[in-house]
Amino acid sequence: MKKTVSEVRENQVKITDAFWSQIQEKVIDVVIPFQEKVLNDEIPGVEKSHAIENFRIAAGLSQGEFYGMVFQDSDVAKWLEGVAYSLAVKPDPALEARADEMIEIIEKAQQPDGYLDTYFIIKEPEHRWQNLQECHELYCAGHMMEAAAAYYRVTGKDKLLHVTERLADHIIGRFGPEEEKEHGFPGHQEVEIGLMKLYHVTGKEKYKNMARYFLEERGKNPDYFYEEKLRRGWQHSGQYSTDRLDVRYYQAHQTVYEQKEAVGHAVRALYMYTAMADLAGTDGDDRLYQACRTLWDNIVGRKLYITGGLGGDSEGEAFACNYELPNDMAYAETCASIAMIFFAHHMLEMDMDGAYADIIEKELYNSTISGMQLDGKRYFYVNPLECEPGVSGELFGYEHALPTRPGWYACACCPPNLIRLITSLGKYCFSESDSAIYSHLMIGQEAELQKADITVQTSYPWEGKTEYRVTPKTNEEFTLAIHIPYYVDTDSEETSVTVNGEPLNMAELMEKGYVYITRKWKEGDKVSVHFPMEVRKVYANQNVREDAGCVALLRGPIVYCLEGADNGKLLQSLRIPRDLNAVPYVCEDGVLRGNVLLRIEGWRMVGGQELYSEKRPVREKAVLTAIPYYTWANRGENQMRVWILEE
Amino acid sequence: MKKTVSEVRENQVKITDAFWSQIQEKVIDVVIPFQEKVLNDEIPGVEKSHAIENFRIAAGLSQGEFYGMVFQDSDVAKWLEGVAYSLAVKPDPALEARADEMIEIIEKAQQPDGYLDTYFIIKEPEHRWQNLQECHELYCAGHMMEAAAAYYRVTGKDKLLHVTERLADHIIGRFGPEEEKEHGFPGHQEVEIGLMKLYHVTGKEKYKNMARYFLEERGKNPDYFYEEKLRRGWQHSGQYSTDRLDVRYYQAHQTVYEQKEAVGHAVRALYMYTAMADLAGTDGDDRLYQACRTLWDNIVGRKLYITGGLGGDSEGEAFACNYELPNDMAYAETCASIAMIFFAHHMLEMDMDGAYADIIEKELYNSTISGMQLDGKRYFYVNPLECEPGVSGELFGYEHALPTRPGWYACACCPPNLIRLITSLGKYCFSESDSAIYSHLMIGQEAELQKADITVQTSYPWEGKTEYRVTPKTNEEFTLAIHIPYYVDTDSEETSVTVNGEPLNMAELMEKGYVYITRKWKEGDKVSVHFPMEVRKVYANQNVREDAGCVALLRGPIVYCLEGADNGKLLQSLRIPRDLNAVPYVCEDGVLRGNVLLRIEGWRMVGGQELYSEKRPVREKAVLTAIPYYTWANRGENQMRVWILEE
Repeated sequence: MKKTVSEVRENQVKITDAFWSQIQEKVIDVVIPFQEKVLNDEIPGVEKSHAIENFRIAAGLSQGEFYGMVFQDSDVAKWLEGVAYSLAVKPDPALEARADEMIEIIEKAQQPDGYLDTYFIIKEPEHRWQNLQECHELYCAGHMMEAAAAYYRVTGKDKLLHVTERLADHIIGRFGPEEEKEHGFPGHQEVEIGLMKLYHVTGKEKYKNMARYFLEERGKNPDYFYEEKLRRGWQHSGQYSTDRLDVRYYQAHQTVYEQKEAVGHAVRALYMYTAMADLAGTDGDDRLYQACRTLWDNIVGRKLYITGGLGGDSEGEAFACNYELPNDMAYAETCASIAMIFFAHHMLEMDMDGAYADIIEKELYNSTISGMQLDGKRYFYVNPLECEPGVSGELFGYEHALPTRPGWYACACCPPNLIRLITSLGKYCFSESDSAIYSHLMIGQEAELQKADITVQTSYPWEGKTEYRVTPKTNEEFTLAIHIPYYVDTDSEETSVTVNGEPLNMAELMEKGYVYITRKWKEGDKVSVHFPMEVRKVYANQNVREDAGCVALLRGPIVYCLEGADNGKLLQSLRIPRDLNAVPYVCEDGVLRGNVLLRIEGWRMVGGQELYSEKRPVREKAVLTAIPYYTWANRGENQMRVWILEE
Repeated sequence: MKKTVSEVRENQVKITDAFWSQIQEKVIDVVIPFQEKVLNDEIPGVEKSHAIENFRIAAGLSQGEFYGMVFQDSDVAKWLEGVAYSLAVKPDPALEARADEMIEIIEKAQQPDGYLDTYFIIKEPEHRWQNLQECHELYCAGHMMEAAAAYYRVTGKDKLLHVTERLADHIIGRFGPEEEKEHGFPGHQEVEIGLMKLYHVTGKEKYKNMARYFLEERGKNPDYFYEEKLRRGWQHSGQYSTDRLDVRYYQAHQTVYEQKEAVGHAVRALYMYTAMADLAGTDGDDRLYQACRTLWDNIVGRKLYITGGLGGDSEGEAFACNYELPNDMAYAETCASIAMIFFAHHMLEMDMDGAYADIIEKELYNSTISGMQLDGKRYFYVNPLECEPGVSGELFGYEHALPTRPGWYACACCPPNLIRLITSLGKYCFSESDSAIYSHLMIGQEAELQKADITVQTSYPWEGKTEYRVTPKTNEEFTLAIHIPYYVDTDSEETSVTVNGEPLNMAELMEKGYVYITRKWKEGDKVSVHFPMEVRKVYANQNVREDAGCVALLRGPIVYCLEGADNGKLLQSLRIPRDLNAVPYVCEDGVLRGNVLLRIEGWRMVGGQELYSEKRPVREKAVLTAIPYYTWANRGENQMRVWILEE
């Protein structure tokens, strides 16, 4: 399976979407400046970052000690990557100048041999590369490569690119299959993605080869981390006082070809799958594609929350066993959902199957943006599907699942990850092959593609009405393939795809979730896609014990939830009738303004005061209000549930 | 509220009950000898105990180091207490001789000043009494006092009694309200119970006063443990490396009069309430009674599992917040259920209210004996209400809730606690006041009481048919008050209480769950109590989110559960119909032989392979088999649920 499409670059697309533009603006106007201040330790009351100061110290521009996590550098890298994408969305010379300045500091911090990691430069230079398991040197390198590639793609400036090339060359000089080199692989995958991006930008095979080396070395010797530990005399270089020896946590228990189940730390796993899928498509490597496909099927068939959340085991921020998807104890890290988009996007590039686009959409509208407060100022690391104040964030087993978003985190991976996702949204909308343009997402935009400029106008995700205006740049015939979401009833009379008002025969033109429209396009050609947007009741597989007897409500790509703010106490006593009567309406005021909410004729079970009773609780009519899941916890601490019992 | 009844002694009652006699026999014939071997380190493959060897070393009879928990001594004490009761049930001169021998070793281990705790005698004599928070010296003392009182009551031998009197005098010499004494209280309550038992046996007020001192000192200064820590320079004497400073864990956050909610470590709490209730009834202390009543109401109204389990928070083996009763993560320690019986028994002695007897019964037939495998050879510490192999005992948050009973524990509190409960069962059956005999439990027995000998024959808990044969020892009129369980429909035509075949008017004679029969009794008088035993569907309060939509099945005092062994996979896909059709039948073979099981016409929801689907699962008829909860996990590792969804 070789990629047959090229990626759309960040600056080819301008998002002009009622839903997404305001989120992008918030990220650009609020989150990026806020994070810049955090990284510079300018926000009182927020967890100290020291990340930029670490680079200054390493560069000899400042005196002091290293502070922060051993992977603190990656916060700067992810911020830079986000800045790069944001400059494509909204040019800002002052911001670009500050980013350039930061890149200069990073360049100065780089060691003569190419090494770059402020923790070890400042604190333990003698212990470089001795603890790949825990010390995140390769992880930080990978993020810096991603930032460099993004900054180069958007601005054309190559200073950081050259820094990371030197860094990559340093890594290649040390690790690899050759006998004289060290054989190893990182405890936290990421450098594989970074190396692939360096390859895509520079075309230099050595970077792709190194990505393959790290992927294929992994799991060859499941005892590698143990042996590494022996070599360093069991000393914990870096900051770690516990050593995980369950190599499943690191996806190092088997080779990537042998792994059949998504296990261990979810973000590590998904970063690995992302690099695997990128490499498989780049090289047309069917064996690697099959490995990706097996893991994809396991996740989507057994380990994915309805919201797109990933990770049912909060210990190790990890995948739980098959079908174990606890709602109140979910880990469902924001970063994992973001990583799932990366993975899905590369799978899609190999195989234009709408199932991948559907997952990207699920992640985008639910458990990624749920990580950010609506005002952009607070963030969730963990995105549970049930919240119980007094329990969530407090009791043992629930400590990770906070009832409201904190301002920042000591381990601040998720907020900058959201920045880079949302500012680069444009590149997930379209792909382009020799003969076709593929539209994956219904997001309002102006896209400058190779074969055509396309303007998309849509009322998605609230309505199924989207128009594509095509301005071709060629006289040749080509295809516009538009992804129709999986839930659309293509047999419905209300569903239609028209070209300049002429209806097409969808049954004939649909293939794996895309409607293929091939013609000689003329300027001003208009494709309209209309479909009804019903409220859907969804049931979980009988293996999922946590969702037994329950339904989740979805409309379009949006997963809904009930919150105490609208529905009073004891959400567990509410019931959704089998014959659902749910009326969507636009919220007119408050922080949820503009969102489509659902008004549902439901039931409330009312019982006595006793703890246990033979008397069946009686049901009373109750009007329930469901809100989009991503908007939860924006009105103070209160109960929340996605899965509601059916009566 | 002063106690108006006297406790029935262990040797006044001989259990001759189809249900309980075999359990008593198993405990006496299997568990006591097994535990004796464990304490002597004679069982290969079982956690090393060293408990008796510790006493030998402390006594100078052996050389070596202390081994085990800082509270290892209490295992010996609890075993001795169990042996005492067992000698009342089944005299065994050889066993008694070995117990005498052990008591001699204990006597030799006691220090000249009365101190007795092998950890500190052997290991840290200089650190005695410096860490009341964690080091369990008073806890071990309390258990030794309980053992001494029991051994004296049953055998009349007072050697251990004198040892513990000297120990108590040593404690009284060191701690107390007087200015020159240290003011303190134990981190783990228990000595209060022991001191009350010493008082009951010796009549010496000083022991009761000391119990009151420890109870009333508690929580007066919530910083006491912190100050103690400062005094010892933050050193961890004993074995503990973590210091809990949340004093709610120790019920030391408020005085016992101020505490309105059962919080913290459940066994500590319940031992404290037990001593409070004993003292309240002994002294007729209304204020203390009210404190007990408040805590009782909180537990029974908000914190008690349907099985009688206590403790919804596995961290700290603790009570969770109100109504937080997770089934799969339950702690529900066997010891906590046993302690609840102690508490209920003292409450009952103050107030002959059947509600207390009902709780004793609930605990006896469910979450106490569930702690022991049917063959008496393996034990649960934790008694969850849902078990999911692959999750239970494995995933984070569930590690404590094992799917099958282990052979022994390093912290072996529960097995010996079960021994002493089951061997002393006789004393929970009757109480006697000046004018009445109260029957609390329907257990077959021959009881030699003050006013009469009573023979009870019953088919309880499987049928509601019990006969009391009375042989009076007095010509005076007296009352026989028989507890009728809370679930009995006294208006049913099938419910009757007859004396020599003549039906009584129950409505007139019932008061707070007891039917009061007052007459001049003649030899051979026969009271028959008959009631129907229906299968009951029970609903939890709407506040209990974990049981929402579910029912539990009970019959008589027995709580039922479904197991995979009978019902196949995916118990969460099973449904109990609203119109229940459940047929009880006696199990004829296998390890459950003799138990009444339920055959239920239910449903199984069957869905597709997809993780999520809009298609409602279809229901198929399924015959379900429910087994008594206490018998679960006797047929290998499999799924189990008490709460089943209703359809």
